[in-house]
Amino acid sequence: MRGFKRLIGVSEALERLRKAVAHRIREVEEVELIDSLGRICAEDVKAMMDVPPYDRSAVDGYAIIAEDVFGASPMNPVKLKLVGRIMAGSNPLTIPRVERGEAAEIMTGAPMPSNANAVVMAEDVKVVEDGIEVLKPVHPYRNVSRRGEDFARGETVIRRGVRVKPWHIGALASLNVKRLKVFRRPRISVLSTGDELIELGGELKPGKIVNSTKPMLMALLLAEGCIPLDLGIVGDDVDEIHSRILTGLRKSDGVIVTGGSSIGVRDLVPEAVKRLGEIIFHGLRIRPGKPTGAAVSDGKPIFMLSGFPVAAAVGFEALVRPILAHMQGCVIEPRPRVEGILTRRVVNPPNTRSYVRVRVFESDGRVMVEPLRLTGSGILSSLTRGNGLLIIPEELEGYDEGDSVIVELLHPIERGDER
Amino acid sequence: MRGFKRLIGVSEALERLRKAVAHRIREVEEVELIDSLGRICAEDVKAMMDVPPYDRSAVDGYAIIAEDVFGASPMNPVKLKLVGRIMAGSNPLTIPRVERGEAAEIMTGAPMPSNANAVVMAEDVKVVEDGIEVLKPVHPYRNVSRRGEDFARGETVIRRGVRVKPWHIGALASLNVKRLKVFRRPRISVLSTGDELIELGGELKPGKIVNSTKPMLMALLLAEGCIPLDLGIVGDDVDEIHSRILTGLRKSDGVIVTGGSSIGVRDLVPEAVKRLGEIIFHGLRIRPGKPTGAAVSDGKPIFMLSGFPVAAAVGFEALVRPILAHMQGCVIEPRPRVEGILTRRVVNPPNTRSYVRVRVFESDGRVMVEPLRLTGSGILSSLTRGNGLLIIPEELEGYDEGDSVIVELLHPIERGDER
Repeated sequence: MRGFKRLIGVSEALERLRKAVAHRIREVEEVELIDSLGRICAEDVKAMMDVPPYDRSAVDGYAIIAEDVFGASPMNPVKLKLVGRIMAGSNPLTIPRVERGEAAEIMTGAPMPSNANAVVMAEDVKVVEDGIEVLKPVHPYRNVSRRGEDFARGETVIRRGVRVKPWHIGALASLNVKRLKVFRRPRISVLSTGDELIELGGELKPGKIVNSTKPMLMALLLAEGCIPLDLGIVGDDVDEIHSRILTGLRKSDGVIVTGGSSIGVRDLVPEAVKRLGEIIFHGLRIRPGKPTGAAVSDGKPIFMLSGFPVAAAVGFEALVRPILAHMQGCVIEPRPRVEGILTRRVVNPPNTRSYVRVRVFESDGRVMVEPLRLTGSGILSSLTRGNGLLIIPEELEGYDEGDSVIVELLHPIERGDER
Repeated sequence: MRGFKRLIGVSEALERLRKAVAHRIREVEEVELIDSLGRICAEDVKAMMDVPPYDRSAVDGYAIIAEDVFGASPMNPVKLKLVGRIMAGSNPLTIPRVERGEAAEIMTGAPMPSNANAVVMAEDVKVVEDGIEVLKPVHPYRNVSRRGEDFARGETVIRRGVRVKPWHIGALASLNVKRLKVFRRPRISVLSTGDELIELGGELKPGKIVNSTKPMLMALLLAEGCIPLDLGIVGDDVDEIHSRILTGLRKSDGVIVTGGSSIGVRDLVPEAVKRLGEIIFHGLRIRPGKPTGAAVSDGKPIFMLSGFPVAAAVGFEALVRPILAHMQGCVIEPRPRVEGILTRRVVNPPNTRSYVRVRVFESDGRVMVEPLRLTGSGILSSLTRGNGLLIIPEELEGYDEGDSVIVELLHPIERGDER
């Protein structure tokens, strides 16, 4: 009898792997601000000025001294004399000053006149012959964007290790930051093993199948902001597997190998990998994907994932994404999640983390979660017909019908009951 | 007194806009399969063969006739004669046939020999001199991936209008689909108005600020898979605004204009837009972003968003994303969400949809949601310091401290209490 001698849990596997993977992505590229979207920021950027750089009006209205209109009401309007109009873009040094009893018309974004401390909105004012009547009191600094209220000079706007989002682009633009330093994209190689596999577009002879796991993994890497390198397909030949992985290690930051790693007649991939480095673990308490393993060579990770696409996708989620974040010094991006009601009981084997493919749909205004299939690590259609993954943690025996569960969404929720 | 005469709710605004926006993205591009990632599929693809194309073994083990080993146990092993070994990639037409009392060693992915109907795993077998002893019964078709079980010939694998995910790439690869038809990316123009604005990288003179809203919107469009076209900045000049929007309409599928659309002294943007088409609404019951509006010209949308970055981001989320999906015939991708406990009461004005910027963090193993600021539509730092948006629907007056709320995550959750 053969089998995996020591299956370990995902948390322990990740802990060991994080300790062993010493390789880091440190090289920095400087890019145009807009091109930094989705990249990992490589510098702490501090505000070198106040934003906004001057007190300015947040609305169209009248700049006044708040104390002048404390008792204002429609019954008891306060009349103020108009001393000018301040347009957006005016030079703060040349605009009129407002004294007690005076007001200046002011546009959204225009600098506040000195001495004025509030803006009363246009709709709370009645324009009369030689001035305005204010119908409502305002607090001091009401409708005023104060200098430095968004970013004060010296404040940190984005930190090293943060993934750049559209809001960072806006914040950095407001500081006139035209270029940003980001870490280069990780390069990850993908190798498939298996005598039965042909490349996409090749001729399908009897007994052969098209390799679907490698294109899927390359797409998953692209979606993580990596550059995937294609190491092709090798047959069940240890020397050739070894030589391709070696190429991958030289050219990239890590290698994913699929297939050939279950405990069978010959453990081709682990055999090849052992020549290159240390196997950190082989055999995970995860379903699907028990034969998953990982090794480290010169601090770089070698992931041994299943050749079956669903098990490979689960291995990618459980191991590759966290280690990519580890190598980049960033945190893992959250997936969209949704809570719903389970339509059928699901059972979890002891001490196993299960990734159950589910269909999430709305019915009578409720979100329902239907388990699609508990086994079948080759069944890609469970990820395309289905739209979610229900992750059952190690300590649970499963969920009952009617339980409320949280599901990671792979595709948007289907509206209505139709498929 | 002036003001928005008829503020409408977001749902009504979207309903009117969907009716009015007749323009559709219909042009199709055929791309390499991997390049279709994230694009909108433009064709229904049907499986032109069964996947897998033949019954195959899902494990390393022995292909047998299940009926032979129904009573097998370690105490009562069933001895079978070995008639061969089947490697992955073998031609199904030339492999040995298995008769009653016989077994063939078989590798993961190898075609099943005819007559055999199950695979017993290597770990449930003892190899003896002239054959094997099976120690465990197996059900018929156990450990066998059946022909067509993933995709049956004729079945639809992906539909027109679906956004291509890594799993679709895998599924299409398994069918040997090398190229896929996708809709071209939408082109959306962005124009900023305001005399106070300068372009990113320009010289900051007194009274001027760098336009941060336009780069942020261009990044939001990129993140939606669109091609953003930069129409630049125009001052507060109706004719120039009109002429730039016209250029945008000619070159692209829609235009976003920021600034100049609140009810002030001059409604410059609405004035310019009126010459080009019909204003569908102007004034939304949304916070921030009340001055938001939209028009339609020749079926193409013109979005009038606030010049303030946070209000513009909210307008993008509430209006632009849904209309982009409408023009592409796809559904809106879900955002990552998380449930947490509110640390402080938030109040919602009557009949308003509020987008409250929050900081989501973990404390003592619980997810906490701290409202950052209820006003301040210019405060971009609320989206970079904070990491979530709490959307309060129109029918609620707010949430109380301690309420459980669902938040859209803009950045990952912060671990621990540190900032």
